[in-house]
Amino acid sequence: MKLPVSTEWVLHCATTLAQLEPGATASAGQLAAYYDVPAPYLAKQLQSLVKAGVLAATTGPRGGFRLGRPAAEITLLDVVEAVDGAARPYECREIRQRGRGALRPEDCRDTCVLADRMAGAHEAWRRALAAETLADVLATLPPTAPARTRALLAATPRRGS
Amino acid sequence: MKLPVSTEWVLHCATTLAQLEPGATASAGQLAAYYDVPAPYLAKQLQSLVKAGVLAATTGPRGGFRLGRPAAEITLLDVVEAVDGAARPYECREIRQRGRGALRPEDCRDTCVLADRMAGAHEAWRRALAAETLADVLATLPPTAPARTRALLAATPRRGS
Repeated sequence: MKLPVSTEWVLHCATTLAQLEPGATASAGQLAAYYDVPAPYLAKQLQSLVKAGVLAATTGPRGGFRLGRPAAEITLLDVVEAVDGAARPYECREIRQRGRGALRPEDCRDTCVLADRMAGAHEAWRRALAAETLADVLATLPPTAPARTRALLAATPRRGS
Repeated sequence: MKLPVSTEWVLHCATTLAQLEPGATASAGQLAAYYDVPAPYLAKQLQSLVKAGVLAATTGPRGGFRLGRPAAEITLLDVVEAVDGAARPYECREIRQRGRGALRPEDCRDTCVLADRMAGAHEAWRRALAAETLADVLATLPPTAPARTRALLAATPRRGS
């Protein structure tokens, strides 16, 4: 059970964008240089975040990405599921209805207890990530972090976005 | 984030073995026929469960698999991690220390807050699965289930194991 490598990228990029001044943006090229990750692949992931409403994209020479809503309204779950989807890791293919031990369909109206427990664990995971917003993450950073982030981003060329 | 398809197989096989009389075994071939899954691949997964102590394997013409310890001492987490491993789905590659935004190593002595929150969610998932034993699962089955399971398994040839 693995999350894509880009999960780390998008979590950090969202945290970085949460530190910009209101209305300011950063390009995919700037964010890629900021974290030394491949710009084209990062741009694709950022577009997934836009599609999910986590980020907003603006065009033009000063265009780029910014948060799609306030940091207090974006959870880590929003970011993670924007790139990895919301599908459950455990797939129930109803093998209880197959083979020599097959149960009758009328005995399988309820969800299989194993699928139910696996889904419950996934919900526990989702709840934990839904309980943490980007604002919560920012609150753990040193007070000097946002100014540093903004200054370093501003010194990074926008080209390559 | 996906668990292997065989996760469903091993959860069901462990639940089936938990319904056998003490000392009784079922072969990989019997379990494969019981659920109509590929025997060689299932056998490999069952060996992983043996390695993890979840199952015990006996040899000889009546040999096969049985639980490695009482059903009340085998959790769903034990079964799932026996085949999928215990690695965390989120991999932190410390991109916070890379690129133009790189933090200094001395500012990264603590775990990254994002990695910490992702690990916390994984622990919530693990706790949920660790709270459910095979005995708990059996307790949800109809009272007639164990006798039916044993009769159908007994009627399944052991060959192919």
